[in-house]
Amino acid sequence: MNHLDTFFRPKTVAVVGVSKKKSKVSSVVFQNIIESGYSKKLYAINPKYAGKKLYNKNCYKSLAEIKESIDLVAIVVPSEYVESVIDDCVKNKTKNIIIISSGFSEIGELEKEKIIASKCKAHGINLLGPNCLGAIFPHQNLNVSFSDGQPKKGNIAFISQSGAFCTAILDWANQKNIGFSHFISLGNKADLSEIDFLESLADDSKVEMFALYLESQKDGHRILKLICRISGKKPVIILEPGKFKNAQRAAQSHTGNLAPDYRVLQSAFQYSGAIHVQSMREMFQGIEILTFSKNKNLGSRVCIVTNAGGIGVLSTDLIEENSLQLSALSSEKKQKLRAILPAEANVHNPVDLVGDAPAIRYQKALEILLDEDGVDQILVLLTPQSTTEVDKTAKLLSTLSKKTNKNIVASFIGGEQVVSGRKILEKNKIPSFEFPADAIITMGLIANYKNQIECSPEDKFLSIPNPEIETMINEAKSKELKSLPHSSVRRLLEIYNLDIPLSSTFIDKEKARQFIKTLFPHKAVMKLVAPDVLHRTEMDGVFLDVVALDKFDHAWDHLCQSILQQGLINAEIQIQAQIEEGLQIILGINTDPNFGKVMIFGAGGIYTEVFADTSLRVLPIQNFETMINETKISHILKGTRNEAPKAIGKCIEIMQKLQQLALNYPGIKAIDINPVIMTEDRAVCVDFKVLV
Amino acid sequence: MNHLDTFFRPKTVAVVGVSKKKSKVSSVVFQNIIESGYSKKLYAINPKYAGKKLYNKNCYKSLAEIKESIDLVAIVVPSEYVESVIDDCVKNKTKNIIIISSGFSEIGELEKEKIIASKCKAHGINLLGPNCLGAIFPHQNLNVSFSDGQPKKGNIAFISQSGAFCTAILDWANQKNIGFSHFISLGNKADLSEIDFLESLADDSKVEMFALYLESQKDGHRILKLICRISGKKPVIILEPGKFKNAQRAAQSHTGNLAPDYRVLQSAFQYSGAIHVQSMREMFQGIEILTFSKNKNLGSRVCIVTNAGGIGVLSTDLIEENSLQLSALSSEKKQKLRAILPAEANVHNPVDLVGDAPAIRYQKALEILLDEDGVDQILVLLTPQSTTEVDKTAKLLSTLSKKTNKNIVASFIGGEQVVSGRKILEKNKIPSFEFPADAIITMGLIANYKNQIECSPEDKFLSIPNPEIETMINEAKSKELKSLPHSSVRRLLEIYNLDIPLSSTFIDKEKARQFIKTLFPHKAVMKLVAPDVLHRTEMDGVFLDVVALDKFDHAWDHLCQSILQQGLINAEIQIQAQIEEGLQIILGINTDPNFGKVMIFGAGGIYTEVFADTSLRVLPIQNFETMINETKISHILKGTRNEAPKAIGKCIEIMQKLQQLALNYPGIKAIDINPVIMTEDRAVCVDFKVLV
Repeated sequence: MNHLDTFFRPKTVAVVGVSKKKSKVSSVVFQNIIESGYSKKLYAINPKYAGKKLYNKNCYKSLAEIKESIDLVAIVVPSEYVESVIDDCVKNKTKNIIIISSGFSEIGELEKEKIIASKCKAHGINLLGPNCLGAIFPHQNLNVSFSDGQPKKGNIAFISQSGAFCTAILDWANQKNIGFSHFISLGNKADLSEIDFLESLADDSKVEMFALYLESQKDGHRILKLICRISGKKPVIILEPGKFKNAQRAAQSHTGNLAPDYRVLQSAFQYSGAIHVQSMREMFQGIEILTFSKNKNLGSRVCIVTNAGGIGVLSTDLIEENSLQLSALSSEKKQKLRAILPAEANVHNPVDLVGDAPAIRYQKALEILLDEDGVDQILVLLTPQSTTEVDKTAKLLSTLSKKTNKNIVASFIGGEQVVSGRKILEKNKIPSFEFPADAIITMGLIANYKNQIECSPEDKFLSIPNPEIETMINEAKSKELKSLPHSSVRRLLEIYNLDIPLSSTFIDKEKARQFIKTLFPHKAVMKLVAPDVLHRTEMDGVFLDVVALDKFDHAWDHLCQSILQQGLINAEIQIQAQIEEGLQIILGINTDPNFGKVMIFGAGGIYTEVFADTSLRVLPIQNFETMINETKISHILKGTRNEAPKAIGKCIEIMQKLQQLALNYPGIKAIDINPVIMTEDRAVCVDFKVLV
Repeated sequence: MNHLDTFFRPKTVAVVGVSKKKSKVSSVVFQNIIESGYSKKLYAINPKYAGKKLYNKNCYKSLAEIKESIDLVAIVVPSEYVESVIDDCVKNKTKNIIIISSGFSEIGELEKEKIIASKCKAHGINLLGPNCLGAIFPHQNLNVSFSDGQPKKGNIAFISQSGAFCTAILDWANQKNIGFSHFISLGNKADLSEIDFLESLADDSKVEMFALYLESQKDGHRILKLICRISGKKPVIILEPGKFKNAQRAAQSHTGNLAPDYRVLQSAFQYSGAIHVQSMREMFQGIEILTFSKNKNLGSRVCIVTNAGGIGVLSTDLIEENSLQLSALSSEKKQKLRAILPAEANVHNPVDLVGDAPAIRYQKALEILLDEDGVDQILVLLTPQSTTEVDKTAKLLSTLSKKTNKNIVASFIGGEQVVSGRKILEKNKIPSFEFPADAIITMGLIANYKNQIECSPEDKFLSIPNPEIETMINEAKSKELKSLPHSSVRRLLEIYNLDIPLSSTFIDKEKARQFIKTLFPHKAVMKLVAPDVLHRTEMDGVFLDVVALDKFDHAWDHLCQSILQQGLINAEIQIQAQIEEGLQIILGINTDPNFGKVMIFGAGGIYTEVFADTSLRVLPIQNFETMINETKISHILKGTRNEAPKAIGKCIEIMQKLQQLALNYPGIKAIDINPVIMTEDRAVCVDFKVLV
């Protein structure tokens, strides 16, 4: 049995703090329960009115007084009294609590919140809140919230971390005739979070879609797994702000620029199949199109039908930007269109019915296009011209939409003249948008989001950890080193059989001189390696183009001095064959506080920071090729007219090995290969750092 | 006197083709004139009803019958009769004609259109159309169009190349209570175009803003000059589709990728000060904010005030993306806010008034913020929570807005509960948006567009052409060469004193051998130069890294063979000192069919096509530095932690010289320097091509 069963379907409900004054939040909650039509047992609790009637129900002194254990208790008392109410709940053996009261962690009172949360936990009580709007279960006729309106019955489970967001969407949905199965305000998430609700509602037959507004994550890894499980069957729309917070953070941390965590969030949601929207408009419109178009084909091939040629062209501008395609119409269908349309009409997509198109012309054209295989969605545009039949056209769209599995979406553009037409569309569940751009952005959001799902269990990529590597990591950690020492890295590269330039490290100048002579006349690189030196170029620790012994001497002396001046421990001087011809890329692993290990691939060298041409995925990754293809540099890797194709297969091998390393050894915090030099037959790891 | 004076303010109007049948387009036009309240002389023309009354006016057989010359004739007869009506107009000495009839160039009948246009021209008659909706002059109480509604009086001159667009915006504007000074449907632009209307209305006191929907340009150069003249005083909003057309074109032409003409359009409009919008929503919303906020400070520093914290944060996500800044509030103002707001409130921007904020709390906070110097615009967000006073808040915004020169913009988010509040805002001319993102995008569009204006007369950059260069260009043209021969280019580089690598061209192998020996041990580049070879690398015509005589021999023989095989005329072999260390950029001049000469600056080498990191300007350019700064590669030019700053000043010198060349010698079609190698003290033009 689902541990939230009594939460979602309580047979007894109590509100603590109900007052005589109707406008008090507690009373609003109590009245909402009554007005929503809840027919099971309902108790009012307030010592002040004990023994009297409140809103026609008996009022009790405290929960302790009530003999049966209550399924769901809503607490709406000042924050200082909450703890003692919880004590009463414990005595009552209450199963679920919603604390609507505020005055906890949101104003810094974290301790107070922890105390009540741990009391609930200790007694197996589920806790929603504190500091929330409450919860509404329309199919149970139960509204335990202080929301102003009653939501309609529907199939959307809406879960929000902001109460204000709840009121806005509820008001909007009521106007649009869109209903909910569950409507939950999370508040401070002291106990129950989005994860609990996703888990317990994933298989609920009343839920056909999830919509989440989140401001923070409790366990990114678990939420991704849940979304992976759900999104193939039920769409999950998520709105989470963060670019701004991130921009502020990025300004502080340097490396943050390469892997801003908002990008991690975006990538994580996208590849687990969530529809990650960027604004309230996108969320609301996404909900509308998914609600109205259920069981329709929401593919990416779009045909536009319009009575305004220019607006048709303007709309096509947006098709590609939103990952959609303009359907190519078959010549058979074009002929059919030609036969029924006036000479000035355009029978290519966007299909222009010409300004004087009456409803019947829309109908005839749509009947032909609904029969076209290459069309998934049809966007019908209408401007109110002198012979336009707005309402009649709206009605025929409704009739046609019922007979087809293609998705019909409309944008009637104008003011007073299109209002009634828009209402007819809404009533008949045709997604309708004020402007064509809104329609296209929304069609793009929902088209093919399922195709991006790349979920696979992590253990598929795990193997038995190598004790030697574990020892290396533990040793470095016990010495409080930031990164693995050079010798360990070299051993790691050996174990993983990675392609590296001919290289050796020295503390003896004579031995170094003998080694570098074997490299000449090829160029060599000399650099300082020490576990605590991360940004070498900044401290003048790299000498390029060493081709003669005098250059060697100069570099050696300079580097030695550098070691002494900085007092570096375990420092050595590395001599490496310089790899010249090739394309520089970077590869790395990072740890995101929410989502764990993340891989980054992108353009390297001096271009890394400037172009920020990187792609990024939360591990585990199945398909490295699509990850590479997301970057612009991939075009060069594949070969251009001036450049031969590079060894992409070798690069993927490195990525696979990096993933294995990162998943097998949790002690590794980050790996940085910058650059990997890509040639026609090699992918050479030139500089390899492992942070622990 | 303005040559369109009688067009805008006709004392006599005639409609040719008026019918008894009320629903006919001609009759709709005639009735619209009457209903709009036109009180001056109005004639109906139709031989069928000659001598009778039509809509209470005398009907005449033909214009030739009317004794006085007519100021404005609207022709609404089938296209085959239009020419003879024009003949009547000529006899009548008609001053202006609007041909509403369709059936001309839009269905391929270009010849028919040319005939009537040249007849009008020959007799000094202004012609609007054919194939248009007509024109409306609300301040004259004159609607000569078949539009369905009558626009309100206002201060927007709206000019549209699409009739359907006209009907949509008219309907929308009526609902929003927004009026027009002029409302013109251009149709096929056989004579009058947007240029004529911009010119004649630029100084019209009734016009405070222009809004244009264009699908094609007649004279890009002239329109830019006009926008430059107007935009400093009156905003010019332009919507022109084209990305889609461009994408199609780009797929065909290879070089198109570097300078797609939609980008030229965008850059041209932007730097002449137009507000170039991308969608109908942006245009409509832009019109709304500019209409309602006239005489307000539309700067880029924004403060957000909200009763929903999460939505405030979500909104700040969009601020930077839309070229706006979040105002930093002074500590004095923050203290004042702290004093009047509850403890949970956020007194930093975005200012969170907390969910239970009544109207008075909005008022107190806004009074403080309206007094803050660092704020230009205030975005007020509201969601309908249980204690929210929607209408009262809307009213106080109206009151406050009247007393301040800061711009107040609102977004009341929800459904039925915010409808009446939104209506109050509209009635009181507070720009109001369904969602915060709409508000922010629109605030971004209008903020600071004036600061980007970079208009300067072309002749400022002209000098006396050098006869030697003119001769070169003419010679190359007379020989039908695509580009200037190498010797001319070398001379050009000399005259303009451009920095080039040590280089010489040869047809004698022995002389070449002597020359290359002087370059060793530095590397040399050997390549084939011929006036008809443009893409050398594609035909294996470049040898890099020539450092020894055996390499020289190999390259020479190979290049000679290549010349013979391709039968190249005037081909030579060039030997050039190879410039190795430095950053590659490209610089070029191109000719755009609409806007003329365009300069391109950007990342060079193998990255050119992949990153398309270029900036682009229509000539003349005043400020080359901002052009450079638009690219990402500029960050490297300015120096990074790994790279010393490059000689940007030298690069600007080249750009100045390129501009002078392009403007002084119209015979030059394009110039291509790819690459310019940027070092710390040089900007070396390695490969210089001049197309004629």
